[in-house]
Amino acid sequence: MNMVHGGDIYRNSVTLDFSVNVNPLGMPEGVKQALLEAIEVCNQYPDIRQQELKIEVGKLHQVLPEHILCGNGASELFMAIVHTLKPKKTVIPIPSFYGYEHAAKACESEICYYEMQHLDSDEEVFGMEEELFQNLDESVDVLFLANPNNPIGGIVPEEWMERLFLHCRKQGIYVILDECFADFCGQEASLLTRYVEFPNVIWVRAFTKIFSIPGVRIGYLINGDEKLLKRIERQLPEWNLSTFAQKAGIACAREKDFINQTREYVEAEGCFLAQELERMGLQVYPYAANFLMVYTEAPLYERLLEKGILIRDCSNFRGLSKGYYRIAIKTREENQQLLTRIGEI
Amino acid sequence: MNMVHGGDIYRNSVTLDFSVNVNPLGMPEGVKQALLEAIEVCNQYPDIRQQELKIEVGKLHQVLPEHILCGNGASELFMAIVHTLKPKKTVIPIPSFYGYEHAAKACESEICYYEMQHLDSDEEVFGMEEELFQNLDESVDVLFLANPNNPIGGIVPEEWMERLFLHCRKQGIYVILDECFADFCGQEASLLTRYVEFPNVIWVRAFTKIFSIPGVRIGYLINGDEKLLKRIERQLPEWNLSTFAQKAGIACAREKDFINQTREYVEAEGCFLAQELERMGLQVYPYAANFLMVYTEAPLYERLLEKGILIRDCSNFRGLSKGYYRIAIKTREENQQLLTRIGEI
Repeated sequence: MNMVHGGDIYRNSVTLDFSVNVNPLGMPEGVKQALLEAIEVCNQYPDIRQQELKIEVGKLHQVLPEHILCGNGASELFMAIVHTLKPKKTVIPIPSFYGYEHAAKACESEICYYEMQHLDSDEEVFGMEEELFQNLDESVDVLFLANPNNPIGGIVPEEWMERLFLHCRKQGIYVILDECFADFCGQEASLLTRYVEFPNVIWVRAFTKIFSIPGVRIGYLINGDEKLLKRIERQLPEWNLSTFAQKAGIACAREKDFINQTREYVEAEGCFLAQELERMGLQVYPYAANFLMVYTEAPLYERLLEKGILIRDCSNFRGLSKGYYRIAIKTREENQQLLTRIGEI
Repeated sequence: MNMVHGGDIYRNSVTLDFSVNVNPLGMPEGVKQALLEAIEVCNQYPDIRQQELKIEVGKLHQVLPEHILCGNGASELFMAIVHTLKPKKTVIPIPSFYGYEHAAKACESEICYYEMQHLDSDEEVFGMEEELFQNLDESVDVLFLANPNNPIGGIVPEEWMERLFLHCRKQGIYVILDECFADFCGQEASLLTRYVEFPNVIWVRAFTKIFSIPGVRIGYLINGDEKLLKRIERQLPEWNLSTFAQKAGIACAREKDFINQTREYVEAEGCFLAQELERMGLQVYPYAANFLMVYTEAPLYERLLEKGILIRDCSNFRGLSKGYYRIAIKTREENQQLLTRIGEI
């Protein structure tokens, strides 16, 4: 079955899901409490202006509330952005999240895919940079970029990113920068603190992964150009954020300690899991977030599914082929179970 | 303060909110249970295909699941529909819900507003019909229509509706039919059972009002043209329905008895409230749903707000002016409180 996305537990018999890469520590208690409170007030319309949420997200990232728009997941924001910018030509480096393609197609943009090479080299995680720069000329309207990349997991080096932003600004190209996994990497992995310098870059983030709440749907974007934000807002449906999303989002934004704690935990577990997988003969790519891209010629997906374990078969990602799998970093106990099952193959 | 929508309890001090017209009986217990269950599984992605929900909504309306698309509230569906149809010219009868204008503007459509006359006459609720028909020529791409109308509350007579659908089909006009309040009126008020006959009509409904869950965001559309549905689906963000919306929606669709019970309750209370308001000298318009449009020269909005009661000042609706107010039908106790306060003015 060729699924476009991971996590299809609705049509698979699964006891352990390694295909979806959310925080292995689960949802913090404060967020759960916020969701319980939401039930009590969901007979009222949610705040159409999302005032309190924007203030809290602003505090988390040291960003002005008026430079934030919130969305029903990052997916909704991608759609609203492309409907605003109406790109004639969109560049999508591959492999990457299918959602960029979905959004670009919704506005009937021409799409140019750039295959990233040397993904397995530490030094050249984004080895095609020179060729990519050459092709980012004034005919291009929008570039989608993920930092860290999904499904590969690598991070975009700071210097390279800065050069890219400046280049795109010069060429009149908007960068839709997907940083939905950036909270797993620490502030130094992102140029978000300098967002005002790059009005052509739209940072898109979500609480989905880091707070393990994909069922809630809560994302946000950050940009310093208030006129652009007004235009994007006009593409968002009214009351696009449920009471659940707003209450949970406010609680999430106050959980800075939980984010730091997660980072430490995932770093240690990622290290353990990567080492063990390599010891078993799988190729593990450089990673920065809470998942690993591995390569093996063994039919890993099928064999694990037989044992009730779902991983992400990446063969249907543009730019990847049979043999690439994405595996979430979970708790020690779960990771150990996965390793045992792989050992049996 | 000139608010585009009602229900702004976030920037007003309100003890009783008559500006939002949701079910006075509140949310059924089964729906609350579903929301509680959703908290336990919101660490998983919601079903991207919304299979179970579509099956249940299909059963409720005797519609095929493949003729249903679900949305993050009706608002999201309006946006997705206009981005699909890309109307050059959109007709919006006024007064009506601001959301139609918001959607039409998002796709940069020219908007023609049709002022409905004789709203106070039982026989000519849609008195401009002949003029409207004349103006619905082939230059028009989309007509928004609400049944029952909001904020007026009147219903579109069946024969008139059928004539309109046929006329629009001949002229190549799509009708976006907002029936978000139709559950308050009974099946006979809608042509939904004949939806397959009218592939140019898109029925939009929501559980928001009838189940008193505006904070959850759950709407759906029904149409018999599967190619059109595929195109609309491409305009919806992936995972647009949260786990809360899906679980609550499934529970709602199974609450047929609650819908019938609501109808009886609202009919009796509406009758009481309308009579009392008329007795106090207010003009009450013909209504079919769970709210009343009244006219008075007294400064009703300001005086009631001073007493902590919020009603909907309709003076900022296109086609209405100072003196028009929309009042939700609530419980007997609440309605009585409202009447007492109005009596004091």
